[in-house]
Amino acid sequence: MQLPRPNAEVIARKAAIVSRLRAVLPSAAVIDDPAETRAYECDGLSAYRCPPLAVLLPGTTAEVATALKICREERVPVVPRGSGTSLSGGALPTSDAVILGLGRMNRVLETDLANRFIRVEAGRTNLSVTGAVEGEGFFYAPDPSSQLACAIGGNIAMNSGGAHCLKYGVTTNNLLGVTLVTMAGEVVEIGGPWMEAGGLDLLGVICGSEGQLGVVTEAVLRVLPKPEGARPVLIGFNSNEVAGACVADIIRAGVLPVAIEFMDRPCIRACEEFAKAGYPDCEALLIIEVEGSPAEIDDQLARIGEIARRHDPVELRESRSEAESARIWLGRKSAFGAMGRINDYMCLDGTIPVSALPHVLKRIGEMSRGYGLDVANVFHAGDGNMHPLILFNANKPGDLEKCEALGADILRLCVEVGGCLSGEHGVGIEKRDLMVAQFTEEDMEAQMRVKDVFDPDWLLNPAKVFPLEASAARRGA
Amino acid sequence: MQLPRPNAEVIARKAAIVSRLRAVLPSAAVIDDPAETRAYECDGLSAYRCPPLAVLLPGTTAEVATALKICREERVPVVPRGSGTSLSGGALPTSDAVILGLGRMNRVLETDLANRFIRVEAGRTNLSVTGAVEGEGFFYAPDPSSQLACAIGGNIAMNSGGAHCLKYGVTTNNLLGVTLVTMAGEVVEIGGPWMEAGGLDLLGVICGSEGQLGVVTEAVLRVLPKPEGARPVLIGFNSNEVAGACVADIIRAGVLPVAIEFMDRPCIRACEEFAKAGYPDCEALLIIEVEGSPAEIDDQLARIGEIARRHDPVELRESRSEAESARIWLGRKSAFGAMGRINDYMCLDGTIPVSALPHVLKRIGEMSRGYGLDVANVFHAGDGNMHPLILFNANKPGDLEKCEALGADILRLCVEVGGCLSGEHGVGIEKRDLMVAQFTEEDMEAQMRVKDVFDPDWLLNPAKVFPLEASAARRGA
Repeated sequence: MQLPRPNAEVIARKAAIVSRLRAVLPSAAVIDDPAETRAYECDGLSAYRCPPLAVLLPGTTAEVATALKICREERVPVVPRGSGTSLSGGALPTSDAVILGLGRMNRVLETDLANRFIRVEAGRTNLSVTGAVEGEGFFYAPDPSSQLACAIGGNIAMNSGGAHCLKYGVTTNNLLGVTLVTMAGEVVEIGGPWMEAGGLDLLGVICGSEGQLGVVTEAVLRVLPKPEGARPVLIGFNSNEVAGACVADIIRAGVLPVAIEFMDRPCIRACEEFAKAGYPDCEALLIIEVEGSPAEIDDQLARIGEIARRHDPVELRESRSEAESARIWLGRKSAFGAMGRINDYMCLDGTIPVSALPHVLKRIGEMSRGYGLDVANVFHAGDGNMHPLILFNANKPGDLEKCEALGADILRLCVEVGGCLSGEHGVGIEKRDLMVAQFTEEDMEAQMRVKDVFDPDWLLNPAKVFPLEASAARRGA
Repeated sequence: MQLPRPNAEVIARKAAIVSRLRAVLPSAAVIDDPAETRAYECDGLSAYRCPPLAVLLPGTTAEVATALKICREERVPVVPRGSGTSLSGGALPTSDAVILGLGRMNRVLETDLANRFIRVEAGRTNLSVTGAVEGEGFFYAPDPSSQLACAIGGNIAMNSGGAHCLKYGVTTNNLLGVTLVTMAGEVVEIGGPWMEAGGLDLLGVICGSEGQLGVVTEAVLRVLPKPEGARPVLIGFNSNEVAGACVADIIRAGVLPVAIEFMDRPCIRACEEFAKAGYPDCEALLIIEVEGSPAEIDDQLARIGEIARRHDPVELRESRSEAESARIWLGRKSAFGAMGRINDYMCLDGTIPVSALPHVLKRIGEMSRGYGLDVANVFHAGDGNMHPLILFNANKPGDLEKCEALGADILRLCVEVGGCLSGEHGVGIEKRDLMVAQFTEEDMEAQMRVKDVFDPDWLLNPAKVFPLEASAARRGA
């Protein structure tokens, strides 16, 4: 694709903005060489790309505030970015916008284990938060699949989860406070390290707001004592309905595993071919992990086994060693790689009530046959966060469009049964036009008014989250 | 005290309002007989009393909406009330206001243990929520001292905690959704039973908003599997500093007890005289409770014992039976009764960083001597929620005023060290004038603007939370 060539006016404006930023920020913090800004043209939703006006890599909260103040004066849109792993296009720039990358702000600022918190800069990766405290027996609970790369700032923007959500909750349940810089360059502290902060609690509004309200530069996170040990059990069933009923029975019985992962037949088959984890040939597979002391693990697995056996499983394999545990998880963890090997795929991210699981899987099966595209389901069954993978052939004309239509139908189904459009990937640009399936015009108007308060000129991560038409007047488009 | 007699105009207006409400609500739901409204003249802050214009006891969310709509049209202030156990005057009426009592709305609407939630009406008492699910092995975690009487609606208004906060969090951490009726009579659903709700998360703003934004009529609460067992250990020390250091070391070591209660010498002595629980004669006493399977309990208590012994305790008594556990808790649970026996007292409620505990206790001791009033400290040491009890003699002229001044100084100290004015009792009328110690004018203005959005006429629980002067223009006063 040939991008249109910028005209003289655009070039002059860009030069003026970059020179103002260069005057106040360290020289390494302002990048406008197209060879260097290329890495910031897209995020994890790599089908969409656009070169930004410039890339800013500030090193401190004060630099972020300075940069935002100038951008506001110049009316330049700003796209905040952590590590750029967003799957919904949350960090995708527009050509008139600067990328505000937090990657250099990755320090641990304070570790206070007596008060069970850590304060980090927002560019720090998820896994390295645990890395900073694990020597002393603590960990940070939310664990998105991308945890080696993804930044805490992005986790907060999307309210990310992971396999451990069932027991420990998602980001919002483990976030104690943030330092937020508004588009006006004001630095605001919201929440804080102690359990009770004064005044109204605006932290929930910030967490999951997808960079629409401000730029989070620091975060205070709850860290938890590490459990003594953990052990998974693998349970195979001959139908999705029975596997779903087994999950419901386990939770109703008062057992609280740390993870319940659900895979359907297409997913099992692909993972097995790829990873040779020894998965049984069946319709549905659960991987249930419990944790605690050895005695507690034994007790919980015994109770889970007893409940599962009432549902007539085709296989029930309790891990007896570290090596067996690793093998059980191997298949699940390679699910995305396995899919990529067979075909192109689109990874969806919707949530549903756990109890609606059998119905939703049945309807997805019918839709999949209707569109003639395979769908593999891998699922955090504990908290109802689905990740259906739609397989398609990117080289076959029309296949991508069919895939997008099927994806939209599946997400509409999630909303219909009482769930919602996004569990942890966010709306971004990917699902902005689907918002109408979940929200009335009044609902969206109310959400946009919240943005009006924080960002009256709509310069922060514009043209995302809300349907383009609904936000057009506010964006001046 | 002789109340001024109402004039003819006031009487006529009252009659008109009551008759409009009677026309649309069941007759038992509208009370204006002064003999019957007397029970609603005050709440747990019983030093302040005022007869309301009338009392409404609706039976459904629709009736609440109808009542609020009429009150708004008539411009009658509305004071929502759960069980009236507020210690900060949160449910205190004014003479021109109606009390909106939720006590009749106490039903369980839905129990879904597979999805781990219960939906109740807001007038249901805290303890009876657990009552509804304990037969199946679940419980509702927040446990304020008044849990036998206090209502879930009030718990949400004040973001209440309890001894179990350290492990399970406060109300906001266990609340999934609410049905809120705005002053305009609009019924709004915020959040919901599934882990991920769509859109911006306004639940945090509602929880802890002290009836300023709307009336919560239903709540969706997280219920948790009950632990197998629990056991306390009693540890005495010869100084507050050492006891504080021991708490910090336990948490830093990665042990997470369900409760850590801290009592200082005046409190220990009063409790012991009253309850004869066999407490040692020492400066500071910790009651630490752990829970889990028998093996897990043994393991945790062993680790706690090992850490405590490094701090040279004067006594370390691990419970070996149900009877011993009950005896250990007996003294702590009778703390308030024990204090009331010696003297009149005022119970404060501030929060501090746990690590500031020794410093704060030392300063409180100095202040106590300065004012010549005894202070006993009992303290949820886990989450930094202090409850200093100031002892005074209500019959001695000037003593109450001295007590109030000392209380204000202690709360200012909490703010100074990084904590805040209220842990769970709320600001109400008790602490509204102290808000300036914690918030700047801009902070309060921002909080009042949030109220403007929900309640533009300032009819909901007016003249509370904010300093009277700051809110005067908005209240038309």
